[in-house]
Amino acid sequence: MQKFGEQDYISHLSIDCVIFGYEAQALKVLLAKFKFGKGVFSLPGGYIFKEEGINQAASRILIERTGLQHIYLEQFRVFGDENRIVNSPYKETLKSELGAFDRERFDAEVMEWLTSRFISIGYYALVDINRVTLQCGEFDEYLEWRSIKDIPELIHDHREILDYALISLRQHLDQKLIGFNLLPEAFTMREVQELYEAVYDRPFPINNFQKKILDLEVLERLQKKYTGAANTAPYLYRFRKPSH
Amino acid sequence: MQKFGEQDYISHLSIDCVIFGYEAQALKVLLAKFKFGKGVFSLPGGYIFKEEGINQAASRILIERTGLQHIYLEQFRVFGDENRIVNSPYKETLKSELGAFDRERFDAEVMEWLTSRFISIGYYALVDINRVTLQCGEFDEYLEWRSIKDIPELIHDHREILDYALISLRQHLDQKLIGFNLLPEAFTMREVQELYEAVYDRPFPINNFQKKILDLEVLERLQKKYTGAANTAPYLYRFRKPSH
Repeated sequence: MQKFGEQDYISHLSIDCVIFGYEAQALKVLLAKFKFGKGVFSLPGGYIFKEEGINQAASRILIERTGLQHIYLEQFRVFGDENRIVNSPYKETLKSELGAFDRERFDAEVMEWLTSRFISIGYYALVDINRVTLQCGEFDEYLEWRSIKDIPELIHDHREILDYALISLRQHLDQKLIGFNLLPEAFTMREVQELYEAVYDRPFPINNFQKKILDLEVLERLQKKYTGAANTAPYLYRFRKPSH
Repeated sequence: MQKFGEQDYISHLSIDCVIFGYEAQALKVLLAKFKFGKGVFSLPGGYIFKEEGINQAASRILIERTGLQHIYLEQFRVFGDENRIVNSPYKETLKSELGAFDRERFDAEVMEWLTSRFISIGYYALVDINRVTLQCGEFDEYLEWRSIKDIPELIHDHREILDYALISLRQHLDQKLIGFNLLPEAFTMREVQELYEAVYDRPFPINNFQKKILDLEVLERLQKKYTGAANTAPYLYRFRKPSH
């Protein structure tokens, strides 16, 4: 099997992905239970091939874990403190556990590379949770959707990365109308409101909210299915990309 | 003199700075006339020492060029296409001109490093143009403030970097009230309005604008100087950082 590391990837540069989904009125994040470091969790991430653009690398990492092409993806911040990995309390544990896991691929030189300084580019992604097919990376014991209100201990500075991603998502949700990426193709106005309430973690007055969203003129109202019964089901809407 | 490059800095990673200033009702950007590449212009930039955080590196680069400590500074995007330097039309010119300039410091190995793939972290900075003391970097023939409406040819993808910085500045100006970093300490309401008009490149209706800014409750009105003459000078204001 191929040796890991330096000959394939750009040194000292990594990508960490905060993949947001929405389910059961909760904003969720995809976390990987790590095989190492005593079962701590991590954000899905990876490295950049020497002949690969950074956005392509982020897409590849996302496709690998979710099976989805064409995910909504946004760079949001670079994490580059001098000691972000070097001083991590997980560094020594990782070194010994990875070495024991596969001494050939993770020899002293590779471990030196893996635990050296890394500057990480943070991307967040928005996915329709129902369309995802989870696929573990090689260091993952399993992948799990966790509510942003129930985040376990994360490795290195991944909690800080997650917090910044959430700040960016909140800033962008209104500006760029990206929230619909978290919903299935057809949805009710109540579902849109519940999504906004989950992201911002606060209630919105129902009439104001629905008027505001409808005034954006980006939703297309779908026909109700004729069921023969008295039809009290709410209207379904679909997102129509703004033309400007 | 010290050899340039790889032994000091992180490979394949650079910083480019878009330094905005405001003068004579125009939004300006600090550009460096390059000593090489037939006098093309570039954004001020640099590299990251192996033992230096990325934000510290950006601050250092800004202090070197402007003499200002504590500049308002914001990461806005990473530029990491595979070929952004490698395919630049300036690559070969740079190699030969830098080699001729100082064959000892810029030997073949260093030139290989300098013209290899670089992923660049874009920062924008906002400065009070009157407080800046310009100081050339070692590759600069001179530094110059240029209106964003009069930008000359820039090296590599620096025009794209500048365009993204301007998009970010426009998004942040309202959200974060950062525009006051571009003004002297005391300013009139007309000056604030002219600044916004220069940044967004469009007029704002005067009454709406001034009411909107005053409603933010972040400005402190200063006493007019008593001059003895009929006092028709406009009020001066000072920015008062919001407490939240």
